[in-house]
Amino acid sequence: MADFNEIAKQFVAFYYKAFDADRTSLSALYRQESMLTFESVAVANVGNIIEKLTSLPFQKVQHRVDTTDAQPSGQHGGILVMVTGALMVDEEPKPMNFSQTFQLMPDGASYFILNDIFKLVYSAL
Amino acid sequence: MADFNEIAKQFVAFYYKAFDADRTSLSALYRQESMLTFESVAVANVGNIIEKLTSLPFQKVQHRVDTTDAQPSGQHGGILVMVTGALMVDEEPKPMNFSQTFQLMPDGASYFILNDIFKLVYSAL
Repeated sequence: MADFNEIAKQFVAFYYKAFDADRTSLSALYRQESMLTFESVAVANVGNIIEKLTSLPFQKVQHRVDTTDAQPSGQHGGILVMVTGALMVDEEPKPMNFSQTFQLMPDGASYFILNDIFKLVYSAL
Repeated sequence: MADFNEIAKQFVAFYYKAFDADRTSLSALYRQESMLTFESVAVANVGNIIEKLTSLPFQKVQHRVDTTDAQPSGQHGGILVMVTGALMVDEEPKPMNFSQTFQLMPDGASYFILNDIFKLVYSAL
């Protein structure tokens, strides 16, 4: 079995590349039991998750990953991944900080996203 | 069983209050199998975790929680919690943004921290 840090890194690279190119392609990564909390709005199952992600009010988006940290998430082979980074949308010149947590679960030789929590991080005042 | 959002909120309030008052008291929340990744340095088990937390190079610390998002983390009764907020240390006047992810696992009527990933978030440039 590959190292969880390596799996997390590969997953993160794949996920944001797919997100920025074509959000509908992310449906391969979620399942019926998956959960997404996007800016504190919670949706469940792959259909609702893709509907949420494709209805976000921007056309162009580009994620920049600054840090990826991973841990095994229990006896069931899961991997917890926390990402920090920045994203730029449409013609808005100012990048926004974000933080995102995934729990990946094994599915045969691959992994799917069971948990996904995304949050913009606003500068501390 | 209480709602996972409510448990997450209570946990977060308790955790940062204990952290800011006396870091050694956090030992009650970790177990042998617990993992902490603090600014990308990974340590495992309660003894090493408390040693890491108490050796952080500040005396006074105050966390401010801005957001708490939670999800059930699987069939085993776990709860995934992602926090964003700011912290101030010692006499440094400028707060620093942070993001922190916990996986809480049930332990009788209570919960312990299986996973803990902490990361400062630097402003996007």
